[in-house]
Amino acid sequence: MPTAFSPSDAAPVAPQAAAGNGGAVVISVDAMGGDRGPAAVVAGIEKSADKNPEIRFIVHGPEAELRRLIGKRREIAARCDIRDAPGVVTMHDKPSQVIRSAQGTSMWSAIESVRQGEATVAVSCGNTGALMAMSMLRLRKLPGVARPAIAILWPSRNPSGFNVVLDVGADIRADSTDLLQYAMMGASYARNGLGLERPRVGLLNVGTEEHKGRSELKEAQELIAAAADSARFDYVGFVEGGDLMGDRVDVIVTDGFTGNIALKTGEGTAKLVGDFLKDAFANSIMSKFAALLAMTSLKRLQKRIDPRRVNGGVFLGLNGTVVKSHGSADATGVSAAIKLAFQLAKSGFQDRLAARVAQAAEQAATAAAPAPGPTGDNG
Amino acid sequence: MPTAFSPSDAAPVAPQAAAGNGGAVVISVDAMGGDRGPAAVVAGIEKSADKNPEIRFIVHGPEAELRRLIGKRREIAARCDIRDAPGVVTMHDKPSQVIRSAQGTSMWSAIESVRQGEATVAVSCGNTGALMAMSMLRLRKLPGVARPAIAILWPSRNPSGFNVVLDVGADIRADSTDLLQYAMMGASYARNGLGLERPRVGLLNVGTEEHKGRSELKEAQELIAAAADSARFDYVGFVEGGDLMGDRVDVIVTDGFTGNIALKTGEGTAKLVGDFLKDAFANSIMSKFAALLAMTSLKRLQKRIDPRRVNGGVFLGLNGTVVKSHGSADATGVSAAIKLAFQLAKSGFQDRLAARVAQAAEQAATAAAPAPGPTGDNG
Repeated sequence: MPTAFSPSDAAPVAPQAAAGNGGAVVISVDAMGGDRGPAAVVAGIEKSADKNPEIRFIVHGPEAELRRLIGKRREIAARCDIRDAPGVVTMHDKPSQVIRSAQGTSMWSAIESVRQGEATVAVSCGNTGALMAMSMLRLRKLPGVARPAIAILWPSRNPSGFNVVLDVGADIRADSTDLLQYAMMGASYARNGLGLERPRVGLLNVGTEEHKGRSELKEAQELIAAAADSARFDYVGFVEGGDLMGDRVDVIVTDGFTGNIALKTGEGTAKLVGDFLKDAFANSIMSKFAALLAMTSLKRLQKRIDPRRVNGGVFLGLNGTVVKSHGSADATGVSAAIKLAFQLAKSGFQDRLAARVAQAAEQAATAAAPAPGPTGDNG
Repeated sequence: MPTAFSPSDAAPVAPQAAAGNGGAVVISVDAMGGDRGPAAVVAGIEKSADKNPEIRFIVHGPEAELRRLIGKRREIAARCDIRDAPGVVTMHDKPSQVIRSAQGTSMWSAIESVRQGEATVAVSCGNTGALMAMSMLRLRKLPGVARPAIAILWPSRNPSGFNVVLDVGADIRADSTDLLQYAMMGASYARNGLGLERPRVGLLNVGTEEHKGRSELKEAQELIAAAADSARFDYVGFVEGGDLMGDRVDVIVTDGFTGNIALKTGEGTAKLVGDFLKDAFANSIMSKFAALLAMTSLKRLQKRIDPRRVNGGVFLGLNGTVVKSHGSADATGVSAAIKLAFQLAKSGFQDRLAARVAQAAEQAATAAAPAPGPTGDNG
């Protein structure tokens, strides 16, 4: 994962188009790079357009192909602006190689729309590493952020149904100040995305006792605890793998290596149990009949654990918001990612996050000084 | 987690009592330190004694209490040898503190039985950190092992129903030679525990591409690939969190920090989905009726994902085998841990593992030299 783009080459970035186009919210969509090709992405656009009449789309990919796919759907054709970008980033491309020939790809073009302020949020199903590398190159990191993070909503026992977990794979490393930054950004996301006034933040470790874990975690523990009050979150201390889906905390902070493995372990386990459940009900005529009777309940369960329903990792710490959809997303998954992008765009999340991060950077710099009182903003 | 016991103070260790006591296998059981107290442990002993007439037990704890609990059960009283050890290690004790006053605790006494060769394997529900610290202090590391590991059987899609995963929490660090050692020990465990002639080994990472991950993983990748043939396993390369429960590999190698978080994430997710399933069936009269009809299938499912069924982390890399049961284990859980201990004792696992580790140490030392052919042993 590239981290070589220093803040000194920060490019000018246009103001956010929070509600341009006569009250509509504009989402920039990379139609290529997903495992199921542009047809699934366009079907996802149609699905979300149906539900959210306020969205307009800028769709990036080979023009002829997109015209053919979108032209068939008269309801969305009028709300989609097509941008020709013949190049495609594949799942197997190395981020460092992609960057050299990035211009002309649909991914680059999708990010460019956010950079130029014609769209508020970009959505892509493509290669995570390449998407992060291009996002960093074109959008630049927010001042004070050393490592951006990918945050996801994790199904949980909390009333909202979700916890915020970050980083799940932007960078395999994170030092104590990165983890502090993640705590600030994660709390901001929980406030805007889950509507929690004062989120509870925990730091992922192998045990809850203070003496456990690596040295950078003990350092981060102190930094986060010191920042909690002025950043209006509660720091609950170390949490364990079993708290990711629990109700002890709302935001769980970890490095991108651990977070990525935890995420894939959780997804894999849910899928395994779901498959075992299917096996169990296919076992006898009696159990098949029972499954029929319980259909409504089982469908509700399936919806609750369906990873497509909460599809979308949000890149935090950049001058612009990018939503990474699962590579294998179908129309339902793409539509969920677009919905998330739409909600974040509407809430003015990017501006609030930037304000919060600026505050964090300032605090980290004056960590020893007494903390200021509540700021009263909603970041 | 303590790693300060250097091999230079290695104590003499008695030969393994693989089948002493007239054909019986002797298991040393720490009756204290679990969340449910000695009653649950004694109930677990009874359960496993019932199923496996070959086992005899040495039970460690406060004598009066154990006499009272065991005396009630005539069937097991004759097969249990009670060792008075009034001290108890609690879940909240720090390993470094425990060590200072370890003598006289039931945990110490249980390990001592293995050290002196009167039992083949020790089982404890107590504090993992303290158990590992005492095991290292009394049993000593096998020559050539820098960091012992805890290996577990992870429910999977493989025909045996399980994968071997290590380290899940013995040490929060692991360098490339530790990871090589884990691969050797894990393959040996899969051969003896799961009956796999030539296990497939993978290294846990954030992606399967060769360029991904931390530098120690890239180094370990080369070491493990080079050792695979002479150690009679197949190295399949990097694997992801979703492979822990998959069928691409049989053995997954990782450091104890990542492994511990993955394990708790998997357990927590299975529990969450199980609870959601219960909710779904409690939802209406129709679904409750359906649950009744599907009872047999649902019970089969529950058994398949029940963490008690595969209870027991095995400490690998010491002069003696120790099985760590879940702290919250009930009679079923304790019985599963004893069954695992019994299987390992019967298979002569400890001697085979020691032979395999010695070979690994030799190979690591001559990594550049051509590898020897198959050894023909069953380690």
